[in-house]
Amino acid sequence: MSGLDCAAVVERMRRRAPLVHCLTAAVSMNLVADATLAAGARPMMTETQQEAPFVVRRADALLANLGTLSTDGMAGIPATVRVAVERGIPWVLDPAAIGPSPVRIELARELLAVGPTLVRANASEVLVLAGVGAGGRGADASDRVDAALPAALDLARRHGCVVAVSGEVDLVTDGTHVVQVANGHLMLTRVTGTGCALGALSAACLAVSDEPLEAAVAATVWMGLAGQQAAGRVRGPGSFRAALLDELYALTPEEILAGARIQTAQEIR
Amino acid sequence: MSGLDCAAVVERMRRRAPLVHCLTAAVSMNLVADATLAAGARPMMTETQQEAPFVVRRADALLANLGTLSTDGMAGIPATVRVAVERGIPWVLDPAAIGPSPVRIELARELLAVGPTLVRANASEVLVLAGVGAGGRGADASDRVDAALPAALDLARRHGCVVAVSGEVDLVTDGTHVVQVANGHLMLTRVTGTGCALGALSAACLAVSDEPLEAAVAATVWMGLAGQQAAGRVRGPGSFRAALLDELYALTPEEILAGARIQTAQEIR
Amino acid sequence: MSGLDCAAVVERMRRRAPLVHCLTAAVSMNLVADATLAAGARPMMTETQQEAPFVVRRADALLANLGTLSTDGMAGIPATVRVAVERGIPWVLDPAAIGPSPVRIELARELLAVGPTLVRANASEVLVLAGVGAGGRGADASDRVDAALPAALDLARRHGCVVAVSGEVDLVTDGTHVVQVANGHLMLTRVTGTGCALGALSAACLAVSDEPLEAAVAATVWMGLAGQQAAGRVRGPGSFRAALLDELYALTPEEILAGARIQTAQEIR
Repeated sequence: MSGLDCAAVVERMRRRAPLVHCLTAAVSMNLVADATLAAGARPMMTETQQEAPFVVRRADALLANLGTLSTDGMAGIPATVRVAVERGIPWVLDPAAIGPSPVRIELARELLAVGPTLVRANASEVLVLAGVGAGGRGADASDRVDAALPAALDLARRHGCVVAVSGEVDLVTDGTHVVQVANGHLMLTRVTGTGCALGALSAACLAVSDEPLEAAVAATVWMGLAGQQAAGRVRGPGSFRAALLDELYALTPEEILAGARIQTAQEIR
Repeated sequence: MSGLDCAAVVERMRRRAPLVHCLTAAVSMNLVADATLAAGARPMMTETQQEAPFVVRRADALLANLGTLSTDGMAGIPATVRVAVERGIPWVLDPAAIGPSPVRIELARELLAVGPTLVRANASEVLVLAGVGAGGRGADASDRVDAALPAALDLARRHGCVVAVSGEVDLVTDGTHVVQVANGHLMLTRVTGTGCALGALSAACLAVSDEPLEAAVAATVWMGLAGQQAAGRVRGPGSFRAALLDELYALTPEEILAGARIQTAQEIR
Repeated sequence: MSGLDCAAVVERMRRRAPLVHCLTAAVSMNLVADATLAAGARPMMTETQQEAPFVVRRADALLANLGTLSTDGMAGIPATVRVAVERGIPWVLDPAAIGPSPVRIELARELLAVGPTLVRANASEVLVLAGVGAGGRGADASDRVDAALPAALDLARRHGCVVAVSGEVDLVTDGTHVVQVANGHLMLTRVTGTGCALGALSAACLAVSDEPLEAAVAATVWMGLAGQQAAGRVRGPGSFRAALLDELYALTPEEILAGARIQTAQEIR
């Protein structure tokens, strides 16, 4: 796993412009769609049980994010995920803010059992999903990324998926390899939905890569580097949000290659 | 139909500040409301069956956009449209992303039968609505505007409405006259909801014009020109979104007149 | 009540970063969350009856805003408010755009009877809530702030709450004291949801102050001053929205102190 692999995924994603079905929090829906479009993929956002399981059949990848879970989403998300799995469409589970909500924990575990291609979450959410954490108080993480490594490895092995843990240094694992990504900026935590947008970007990358680990790392580097670049030119989180989308759009594969801060830890057995 | 007519509509819309009831996709709701406000009209956004059919009675125009169709919208949209029609309130049908969704196709055709003042859509959506296209894969158009002209003429004649088709060169027809608008910029396709916002702006213009063709052309020129101006000053789609709203707000009738690129084709019989 | 008190509230809010549960209009949800984050608090947005009454138990304050009222919100809002009241969590009632909607008026009065800590609204909404106004036509106020003073005093006294009325000069009263805040800028009316965001900011300030009057004035000054600063550097409402968030984030307690334009009227008996 190298910066070169990341750059190749980015280039391929923009060339193929995959259709990404995003089931996501109402609060971040607009940023998720705009980030997906800015990066070069095509978002599709509908979530009702009547429409979503049908529409997903045309998608190249699916994001199932549990943030701001509506009644429509409660019914539509599991039905849509089931169709994606049947058809072999890669999908991302983002158990956003599950900590304080038993309803959401139950739904996240039900979805986990169906077999996501990738789980993307912060440290607290990973701990709750693995059944070992209290879960933060809101949408933010109160646990360190390091502390979530055993839980991430465990989830990846038990469910045959990749797990990406967001934090100061991000961590991506398939249960054997552990990749650390040191791109990113604190300002990303001051805008609602940047994690959700990373979920959608990850789904878009999964659509053009046969290696989920590679796709997840590429998306993490892309978003992190966009955040770094954006943070250098802004006064605060309002202009950062716009600059982040600009960078997702403007970053070249060469810049991805030059800026990627990836470290592959020794394989863990 | 000339740039002078467009400038007059813009001036009148700002002076009267019509109340525009917007039933629209959750994903674009914020941009639609902000664009409506920026341009000088006043948006109203509620969609439940309990509220919307009552509230619409105070509106000067209505937008019925089928994007991200929720369970609330499924029930509320047709009920609200019916009240608007009874009371002679002009209304816009935007069959957003109907292609992949049988539920949405059925609802769009039901609404079409009620008689919209204006249908605003991309080429693929117009073809599906007219029953002759496969409909693109997501929210984007996979068909050319030219290819949708016969379908647009047919819809306009059968339903006595104006049809506005978005694309590289936009096309607006009442079934007899065909107006081409060459304003716009590719960056408009990189921000979610600019088409939805054009629907709301069209509704606001319908509220202050007795000529639906004129209103639709004026809104198309206004949005297109705002996009052109905005694109010149930005790095990517994030800052473009903000600049687009700035231009909808700042463009003067004189600039509309100077920048309008309208061509009226020979009448078609 | 002085600029010094406001500065102290701002400083304390950022230090404690309270968790604010925001039940708010779909159209403004993203701005509300981003403004809350930018200012230094932590937003939590879920609204279903299944989740929200449970999740609110972890919150430090609650906003109940009735804008774009969904079926989920109709059921979830009163259930969540009840839990907040039982647990002594301070809460803000924002009867957004109640004027044209009997459903919303009924819900607002039901919530008012439960006893909000603060009612935040424009003049027209205050008049409708007090049962003496026709309510504007949409989300905007058609009545002057002065004209709403008797209604605001009446509401504050009958329900033992603070009432904050937004307008050209804002007015905050606990039924005895009347504080006028002359911060703010007209551009705040050209962006959807700035009033909703003020509601969330007020809730965040209530979480760190034992004096609801002080908290409401501090939030009003903070938002108003951010609007003034932002308006000086932008071309229109699109860039204003971003700049407003930047200023909520960047304004220092010293700037709050220097910029606050507060006037305490003689006590009213």
